Amino acid sequence: MDKLKIKGLIKHLSRLNYRNMYENDFFLTWEKTDDEIAAVLAVADILRGLREANLSTRFFDSGLGVSLFRDNSTRTRFSFVSACNLLGLTVQDLDEGKSQIAHGETVRETANMISFMADVIGIRDDMYIGKGNAYMRAVAQSVLEGYRDGVLEQRPTLVNLQCDLDHPTQTMADMLHIINTFGGVDKLRGKKIAMTWAYSPSYGKPLSVPQGIIGLMTRFGLEVALAHPEGYEVMPEVEEVARKNAEVSGGRFTKSNSMEEAFQGADIVYPKSWAPFAAMEKRTKLYGEGDEAGIRALERELLKQNAEHKDWQATENLMLKTNRKTAFGEALYMHCLPADITGVSCQEGEVAAAVFDRHRVAMYKEASYKPYIIAAMMLLAKFRNPADKLAERLDCGRPRVR
Amino acid sequence: MDKLKIKGLIKHLSRLNYRNMYENDFFLTWEKTDDEIAAVLAVADILRGLREANLSTRFFDSGLGVSLFRDNSTRTRFSFVSACNLLGLTVQDLDEGKSQIAHGETVRETANMISFMADVIGIRDDMYIGKGNAYMRAVAQSVLEGYRDGVLEQRPTLVNLQCDLDHPTQTMADMLHIINTFGGVDKLRGKKIAMTWAYSPSYGKPLSVPQGIIGLMTRFGLEVALAHPEGYEVMPEVEEVARKNAEVSGGRFTKSNSMEEAFQGADIVYPKSWAPFAAMEKRTKLYGEGDEAGIRALERELLKQNAEHKDWQATENLMLKTNRKTAFGEALYMHCLPADITGVSCQEGEVAAAVFDRHRVAMYKEASYKPYIIAAMMLLAKFRNPADKLAERLDCGRPRVR
Amino acid sequence: MDKLKIKGLIKHLSRLNYRNMYENDFFLTWEKTDDEIAAVLAVADILRGLREANLSTRFFDSGLGVSLFRDNSTRTRFSFVSACNLLGLTVQDLDEGKSQIAHGETVRETANMISFMADVIGIRDDMYIGKGNAYMRAVAQSVLEGYRDGVLEQRPTLVNLQCDLDHPTQTMADMLHIINTFGGVDKLRGKKIAMTWAYSPSYGKPLSVPQGIIGLMTRFGLEVALAHPEGYEVMPEVEEVARKNAEVSGGRFTKSNSMEEAFQGADIVYPKSWAPFAAMEKRTKLYGEGDEAGIRALERELLKQNAEHKDWQATENLMLKTNRKTAFGEALYMHCLPADITGVSCQEGEVAAAVFDRHRVAMYKEASYKPYIIAAMMLLAKFRNPADKLAERLDCGRPRVR
Repeated sequence: MDKLKIKGLIKHLSRLNYRNMYENDFFLTWEKTDDEIAAVLAVADILRGLREANLSTRFFDSGLGVSLFRDNSTRTRFSFVSACNLLGLTVQDLDEGKSQIAHGETVRETANMISFMADVIGIRDDMYIGKGNAYMRAVAQSVLEGYRDGVLEQRPTLVNLQCDLDHPTQTMADMLHIINTFGGVDKLRGKKIAMTWAYSPSYGKPLSVPQGIIGLMTRFGLEVALAHPEGYEVMPEVEEVARKNAEVSGGRFTKSNSMEEAFQGADIVYPKSWAPFAAMEKRTKLYGEGDEAGIRALERELLKQNAEHKDWQATENLMLKTNRKTAFGEALYMHCLPADITGVSCQEGEVAAAVFDRHRVAMYKEASYKPYIIAAMMLLAKFRNPADKLAERLDCGRPRVR
Repeated sequence: MDKLKIKGLIKHLSRLNYRNMYENDFFLTWEKTDDEIAAVLAVADILRGLREANLSTRFFDSGLGVSLFRDNSTRTRFSFVSACNLLGLTVQDLDEGKSQIAHGETVRETANMISFMADVIGIRDDMYIGKGNAYMRAVAQSVLEGYRDGVLEQRPTLVNLQCDLDHPTQTMADMLHIINTFGGVDKLRGKKIAMTWAYSPSYGKPLSVPQGIIGLMTRFGLEVALAHPEGYEVMPEVEEVARKNAEVSGGRFTKSNSMEEAFQGADIVYPKSWAPFAAMEKRTKLYGEGDEAGIRALERELLKQNAEHKDWQATENLMLKTNRKTAFGEALYMHCLPADITGVSCQEGEVAAAVFDRHRVAMYKEASYKPYIIAAMMLLAKFRNPADKLAERLDCGRPRVR
Repeated sequence: MDKLKIKGLIKHLSRLNYRNMYENDFFLTWEKTDDEIAAVLAVADILRGLREANLSTRFFDSGLGVSLFRDNSTRTRFSFVSACNLLGLTVQDLDEGKSQIAHGETVRETANMISFMADVIGIRDDMYIGKGNAYMRAVAQSVLEGYRDGVLEQRPTLVNLQCDLDHPTQTMADMLHIINTFGGVDKLRGKKIAMTWAYSPSYGKPLSVPQGIIGLMTRFGLEVALAHPEGYEVMPEVEEVARKNAEVSGGRFTKSNSMEEAFQGADIVYPKSWAPFAAMEKRTKLYGEGDEAGIRALERELLKQNAEHKDWQATENLMLKTNRKTAFGEALYMHCLPADITGVSCQEGEVAAAVFDRHRVAMYKEASYKPYIIAAMMLLAKFRNPADKLAERLDCGRPRVR
């Protein structure tokens, strides 16, 4: 990216209205205005451009980014650490296993105790329906009160690193990848993206990606085709968000129970396994009751149910149904990774090895946007005037590697 | 805090004699002179003031703070990380589970091997009577020798993050909270603080807080009333410290077996559970012998002993006995957190929920001083002329968030 | 080290040809030219000199050093963290237990996913013959491709923190210790080093140290005497490297089955336990097959085999056989630590307590070079003109502690 392009992006940014993001949190994309979404995408691109130009974007001389992962994580963990590092924050992970939280301490107390010098808190909590997002809001509310009460000297910004409702850092990275692949946001109108379920031999994958995708992509005038077998419905309130978005943006939101129908003529396909919403609700209840036998029975039942839909796989044949007139001769294949690849990571899975391999580099690039998206969310929350700050770095910043 | 106040604190600091703290460790408050204690409190306040003014106090361009926690820890871990971050040090935790230390390596060797670039070592080791503080001194002695022998290029400073004898970073934070709450150290003379045992349904809490409190607070002309059921004595040598302190400072140190007596007219109350010293000694012996059955028997016995004193709880009725003429209409309630709150974190505990709730914000502020206290201890150990360094930052420092 | 000496080292460095190290990895010392080895040693000494002079060598304003330890580690972990910190990189550890790697993700994918902002990747993987080094190369190749494909904005450098073949950061630190102890690389010609097996009551120690030592030390005109009991052979290809090195350098490489013969007249002794190569191969196979019973049987067998050679111990008597005319009145005793010390960390082990104790400080110094060696490897890989960069810091750098 040359400096002129970065300058252009900064100019674009300076015209957007994102003042409500300052000193605020990022929970769900559908709570943000179009300008705010555009600002995150712009800042992410600018930060990437500055880094490519070996210009430091260390805006914090000290400060902590606190992370809490309630599920195993490699890429989100590294993305969060990378984003913090890019801006100058040091990450301290709250490892609940090593803490005293088991003592029965309240969320409010823990949230404040870890935040005395926290500028940002990133949380991943996606396992239980109705819990993850609620927990994040409780933490954010607690530290906001702590800040107002003078306990904390700064207000820690909460960044949702995946919850039961949305996965905004993933879907925004996906969006930026699409925009840059298709040559600009104005090129997307009328394009079709198929967000489809796919078979996986594993159990209980979160719904946050399909929900996040239909909740975000419908804002850009795209046709978003959600497809899944019967019984794999996503949360109705997010479908409602998608429907309204499509209306406003002049796009479309369709639903079907046919992978083929969704792939038909698609410019982008995003086939990915998830657990049925109803089953996730049931699981949340069983965990709450500590019903181990019930959980095991549910797991068996779900795996059996999954296995009835092994034909939901992104095969070569299905790819032939997609739009063959794109720059790649077929739809852009996307995945949040890691994927269940047939014959590679499992016997039968979400995608044929040849399809995955052909799109591998593009998918790695897709993933590479995530640290910048996270950093952009932070920057917009911590600075009143990010466009000026970024322009300063471009014009007279010091090198990252000196 | 305005700049004038910070300037005043720096002036006050520059008049104190703390030269022996340079290139030294912080084990126990009662090994430090009054001027040294005053210097820690002053530097902590100054660091907080500078941070509030968005002035960077990053004094290290690189360097490590090594931490070793031999017990689960959230707030002390985050406080240590925050303190290091504030000064520019990166924390590397020595996780004994992931190390080769089990091979039978000596303390001297491990201490040197982790310290090649360590400016500070923070240790929490509070579980066994006669062990924690001794271990810290062995580590400090080892790295001092390593430094003198030319193995290490700098002398790592040891900071006691809680041992079997004292919990200096906690009690100094408590002290700063009291001073700032009552409007200055000169307002404390004649005030009464009740350091009392309280019932908890848990087992084996360290004695370091009550010991640290009576060992420190008696230096400020306060009346320190220690109260606990029979059999819950603290270490006699620390009581002796408290008695002598009180004599010198013109304060008082009293002991009783009545919570009510201690609370009577108190300006500050600090009700907190701890294990009897004799039981802790016995436990240390049983662990040494690997006597698992003996340990379990001791635990049952202790919980039963605790349960005989469920009336040792900070109830509304007891709070009515305290000094009603303070700014809050009763005594300042303090706790090192997390507390056992009746009906919240346990059925019956150290404090009634209403009492805890009323003082919650104040307690969070109490806790918020700890990172600054730890950073102050480090700064005084690493710089010959901290007052000048701090003045520089106030007058022409660069911003923390730029 | 005075500034004049540092200046001299920089001048020496600027005359060496190390341009192939730029944007390259460090797998094995025997893949590097003599000039490249000399450059690492020089940069390590310079970095140490600058740090002693309180001059910052923070060359990175932001950036990550990713570490992966597939075996418990204290000193290598701290050395890597120290090296990264010295240059300004933040370490993020890839804890395979907390990641999603178990899902069956490929090496290529993981390598890219953790490297979006990684300037360096350090790996320790020494447990299985034929695996560790191969894994490192796979990772390095993956991120090189990621860089070329535009997935990564920088090429992460791989540093071998110990593999099945070599332990270059250890042996280079050992080498620098020898050079500085004997007063210069030119003083080593004709000196004898005994790299011998020694008895240990433990099982399965890697071969990387003896192999690394004979592969490196034979380049300096030293006589390298490898000795071990029958059945404890190291890998034949590394012996071949040693033989060729000795030929080229005018040194010697000898083999025997007698510790006494190796110690005879030696200026340096390095007695250390390792597992027989053949047994390690067998173990690798058993692990591959998941044959737990086979592994336990092999372990018993190996411990029994070890126990037949308890006389392979660095005793006072054996030390008397070494060159008594050195500055210390006997050979310089070396160990990579931790050692199995008779009567200290085990009943019978690699070395007598008195011998170990007499050389303890020297061994700690030996270890203290490792962070600088690692940092030197990084610097030479990340900068085209390290001599200029280092000269800048010497002449007008800012202090590390300000």
